[in-house]
Amino acid sequence: MAKSSVDLPDFASGAVWLVGAGPGDPGLLTLLAAHALAQADVVVYDALVDKRILALARAGARLVYAGKRGGKPSPKQPDISAKLVRLARQKRRVLRLKGGDPFVFGRGGEEALALVAAGVPFRVVPGVTAGIGGAAYAGIPATHRAINAAVTLVTGHGTEGDLPDGLDWTALARGAPVLVIYMALKHLDAIVRRLRDGGRAADEPVAVIAHATTPRQQVVETTLGACVADVARAKLEPPAVVVVGGVVRLRAGLDWQGAAAGRVLEADPLRLLPRATG
Amino acid sequence: MAKSSVDLPDFASGAVWLVGAGPGDPGLLTLLAAHALAQADVVVYDALVDKRILALARAGARLVYAGKRGGKPSPKQPDISAKLVRLARQKRRVLRLKGGDPFVFGRGGEEALALVAAGVPFRVVPGVTAGIGGAAYAGIPATHRAINAAVTLVTGHGTEGDLPDGLDWTALARGAPVLVIYMALKHLDAIVRRLRDGGRAADEPVAVIAHATTPRQQVVETTLGACVADVARAKLEPPAVVVVGGVVRLRAGLDWQGAAAGRVLEADPLRLLPRATG
Repeated sequence: MAKSSVDLPDFASGAVWLVGAGPGDPGLLTLLAAHALAQADVVVYDALVDKRILALARAGARLVYAGKRGGKPSPKQPDISAKLVRLARQKRRVLRLKGGDPFVFGRGGEEALALVAAGVPFRVVPGVTAGIGGAAYAGIPATHRAINAAVTLVTGHGTEGDLPDGLDWTALARGAPVLVIYMALKHLDAIVRRLRDGGRAADEPVAVIAHATTPRQQVVETTLGACVADVARAKLEPPAVVVVGGVVRLRAGLDWQGAAAGRVLEADPLRLLPRATG
Repeated sequence: MAKSSVDLPDFASGAVWLVGAGPGDPGLLTLLAAHALAQADVVVYDALVDKRILALARAGARLVYAGKRGGKPSPKQPDISAKLVRLARQKRRVLRLKGGDPFVFGRGGEEALALVAAGVPFRVVPGVTAGIGGAAYAGIPATHRAINAAVTLVTGHGTEGDLPDGLDWTALARGAPVLVIYMALKHLDAIVRRLRDGGRAADEPVAVIAHATTPRQQVVETTLGACVADVARAKLEPPAVVVVGGVVRLRAGLDWQGAAAGRVLEADPLRLLPRATG
């Protein structure tokens, strides 16, 4: 572990830090997140935060679970926000720890607005977002010059657990050469249908990455046409991100975790690519 | 600084780690990045890597500048890749350090493929990407449930320094409720024109964030119609990211850095929003 000479800001009593824990690998925590864990009086954490990360909390810190997981009774968003306000008013150092980045499908903005309404000071600590970091651990770059100058992050879960409203999937399908879909498993079938309706080809490469960056990471390389069946066959479980687009082909060359385990990488994985896809 | 009990992987001699340094604030370095800096024999770094981050390199480590900056003669991409291979073959621990995330407009994939071709083992360490982390430091969430279920990251620089080829800007403009544009200043005028042609309104909120997350951070809140003039007036200089879309309005409530300096935040910054924009 590096002895860091970085000046890190004071975690004041009565403040809330909204912190991203990254995709899972504790090595992807930021210095600020580790600093916050070492100082917080209370850590209010989500289901997707790795146990090895929670283990970094200061001895004596109170750990409060605020996860939302199917099956279990889960705290509602206003309840979580009210709890953060209450703890801050008790002059605690309150660490709100979320998987990935708090501002990428993490509802960090909603919680922060509740803090503002209550006059509670806060700080945001971005984290490595699961879609980009998870893809990197699968050997897939979110962007690659020969393939895409844009990447779209999209959530497969709307407000009520259904597909998000108000997304123009046809325009998304046309405009985004590469899509990274968060929380994609539940509605994968519907998402695939919309992307196909929007003009994406059945043989377009797709990677489904479950438990990205953790020891349980599982990657299924498939296509848009086959992914629903392949995901069912592999019995993948959430959380998972789905990458759609030409960059998935690079995994044959860039699967560095696979290489460490003996996979022979291709130096020219784009050899078979018919043409740049945008 | 937290005393971390995280197990971090060995940095083997003869290996190259492609590491993201995050947007600038050294607190946004990952534990893996700090670990790599503490162990590397050679650090090959880009122009956008903060000096306070380079200061974390092991005493005695060689620092090699590989930046590309207008004005100075800049190493070409194949030269950089060849240098990484050469250093690895000399059995050095080679840290290739890039601003932001190596796989988000960072050419990490190209360098990694060169390593694969040369048989050099490598590892990828994702970083907080500048567009998302930089926006968070400006008080702007990349996503917010009431506003957008998708965000598109796009680069304003193509292969030859012009606008990237092959992007369907009309479809992007239609499909992406929120756009985060990297390296956007040089061609801002052309980008705005294309987004307007694609149907985006002149009064759509825009934030331009220069030197995000550093002490030199500068934010201009403007609109699509006014941003070119406003950027010129504010004399903003690269690097900058541009955020286009409804989430920019949240800055009035979520500018936590501004609040620390005395700005009064609005608890309901969406009050004036005519409707959800996608």
